[in-house]
Amino acid sequence: MTQLTDTNRQIVLAKRPVGAPNADTLRLDTSDVPVAGAGEMLLRIEYLSLDPYMRGRMNDSKSYADPVAIGSPMVGGTVARVVTSDVKGFAVGDWVLSFSGWQDYAVSDGVGVTNMGTDPAHPSWALGIMGMPGFTAYCGLLLIGEPKAGETVVTAAATGPVGATVGQIAKIKGCRAVGIAGGAEKCAHAVNELGFDACIDRNAPDFDAQLKAACPDGIDVYFENVGGAVFAAVLPLLNPFARVPLCGLVSQYNATSLPEGPDRSGAILGAFLVKKVKVEGFIVWDSFPSQYPEFAKEMTGWIETGKIKYREQVIEGLEYAPDAFNGLLEGRNFGKVVVKVSNS
Amino acid sequence: MTQLTDTNRQIVLAKRPVGAPNADTLRLDTSDVPVAGAGEMLLRIEYLSLDPYMRGRMNDSKSYADPVAIGSPMVGGTVARVVTSDVKGFAVGDWVLSFSGWQDYAVSDGVGVTNMGTDPAHPSWALGIMGMPGFTAYCGLLLIGEPKAGETVVTAAATGPVGATVGQIAKIKGCRAVGIAGGAEKCAHAVNELGFDACIDRNAPDFDAQLKAACPDGIDVYFENVGGAVFAAVLPLLNPFARVPLCGLVSQYNATSLPEGPDRSGAILGAFLVKKVKVEGFIVWDSFPSQYPEFAKEMTGWIETGKIKYREQVIEGLEYAPDAFNGLLEGRNFGKVVVKVSNS
Repeated sequence: MTQLTDTNRQIVLAKRPVGAPNADTLRLDTSDVPVAGAGEMLLRIEYLSLDPYMRGRMNDSKSYADPVAIGSPMVGGTVARVVTSDVKGFAVGDWVLSFSGWQDYAVSDGVGVTNMGTDPAHPSWALGIMGMPGFTAYCGLLLIGEPKAGETVVTAAATGPVGATVGQIAKIKGCRAVGIAGGAEKCAHAVNELGFDACIDRNAPDFDAQLKAACPDGIDVYFENVGGAVFAAVLPLLNPFARVPLCGLVSQYNATSLPEGPDRSGAILGAFLVKKVKVEGFIVWDSFPSQYPEFAKEMTGWIETGKIKYREQVIEGLEYAPDAFNGLLEGRNFGKVVVKVSNS
Repeated sequence: MTQLTDTNRQIVLAKRPVGAPNADTLRLDTSDVPVAGAGEMLLRIEYLSLDPYMRGRMNDSKSYADPVAIGSPMVGGTVARVVTSDVKGFAVGDWVLSFSGWQDYAVSDGVGVTNMGTDPAHPSWALGIMGMPGFTAYCGLLLIGEPKAGETVVTAAATGPVGATVGQIAKIKGCRAVGIAGGAEKCAHAVNELGFDACIDRNAPDFDAQLKAACPDGIDVYFENVGGAVFAAVLPLLNPFARVPLCGLVSQYNATSLPEGPDRSGAILGAFLVKKVKVEGFIVWDSFPSQYPEFAKEMTGWIETGKIKYREQVIEGLEYAPDAFNGLLEGRNFGKVVVKVSNS
């Protein structure tokens, strides 16, 4: 079923998952298209962003944002078009960046919605390289990581929208960029297309040794977005005064209990102490609320001059979003995953 | 046996300890007083500082400094007097701050030695409030912790030379200062003498609940110098954007293996992420090499105006240093521990 004009499809949270989301987790509901009232506009969602943080919103615990209520549509960043408008500054046909979630239509009063104009070159990029993932890479690397030319920057999920951007900015800044990714195809892409100096397959049996060999001068900045075994391999390679921007821990999002022991937490803190490491967690919109214009200007320049390349994986059809989301958590995506809500 | 003029007592590392140091770990050796040659001076050690970091130097692993060699004197900060001098800028009778270790006499070429003049008011304070511990408290709290008036600052080892200084500077900066210490006597001292708003006994059966009650607005800065159970209790109370200067983990220095599971390391990183916490390990002389003059000026002013109080525990006699050091690791000290090398 594709996007219609008289029906609103919503993918709602049916049941909180224990571990990985499954067929019971999400449900496709249909209802009438909502009607915008005075001071409101009706948005038709064109693109939905899929991002790992959404897994946290499925849990019944306050994370950095409230959980999604059972029966409510899953939240998410979206690019939409204005269908009707009684909101100043928004006209019928405008493209907008909104946070309208997993559905076809949404009513908005314009708060938190950015007008992208009538003819943006790459509308969906506002969900990726020009949006949260790109902005996360930029702020985390430059403002927390503070890389200096000649240093070694390591990032996991190197072909994902955050990691790919981290590596390419690291190269722009004169660093050695080492990626970690799942599988030979992604590693080849990171090196051949994105310009990483090396990329290590995290599934390789000798992963630790390969990572060490790829970082002959140690690691100065580790951009952390996965956690788990990758972090364990990185830790002994960190140099004195290393910086670890921490924006995600996707490897543990589906975990249902703490891993078996021994408890390595004290040893990890000990390594931070002895090596004088800085670790800083951040949520980009909270942590860097005023940096967006500077980012947008610089990133636009890098894209226009070919210094930053960007890869999108477009899933056609809202109904395929749940499967695509599970693939994202398992690392089966390749590049930034967006759902083109209509599959027609 | 006390300090003589023809004999040099040295406490040397006899055997690397497994767990807590014991009677086999250190040994008192005697030899002739060394003779200073051309361009050298002979120092007689007056005060030896005892500090938790010394436990790390007993291990055969490179920490932030090289291990002490078997048969060599234990390292340590010292206040000494010049006995003979062929070093420019140092005259017989001068008091100096040096790193001469656990012994009566040492020869020095003057490198790394600070002249304190002929009549310092409190010579041993150069090992405490005016030295490494005071400087550690100052830099860690102000330059990493960045406390703002009205915020809550928590420090463990609240009557130790670092923690006591952290709490008092926090009060000067208009913060709520909450200490953690071992036993009612120390807690009373922290509140009544040092001016902490509250101090919780870490041995109390309801320690976690007491700490929570003492921090009704959560914790904005946690000055970490102990690790272990205290850190576990602090973690859920950290506020968004909390800062954790990390200068020690004394609770785990004697550990011989990793604690039993589950492995909490991922959960701890997850908390750092969700709460956007900054954790930064530091070794004060490495991390803040140029801040000492500013610290010395400000701290002197605070001491002279009574805003900072300082408590020393003086152990008389080098031969008692090993016992006193074990007491320090177990939290049996009360205030900054210095050894007056001569017990006469």
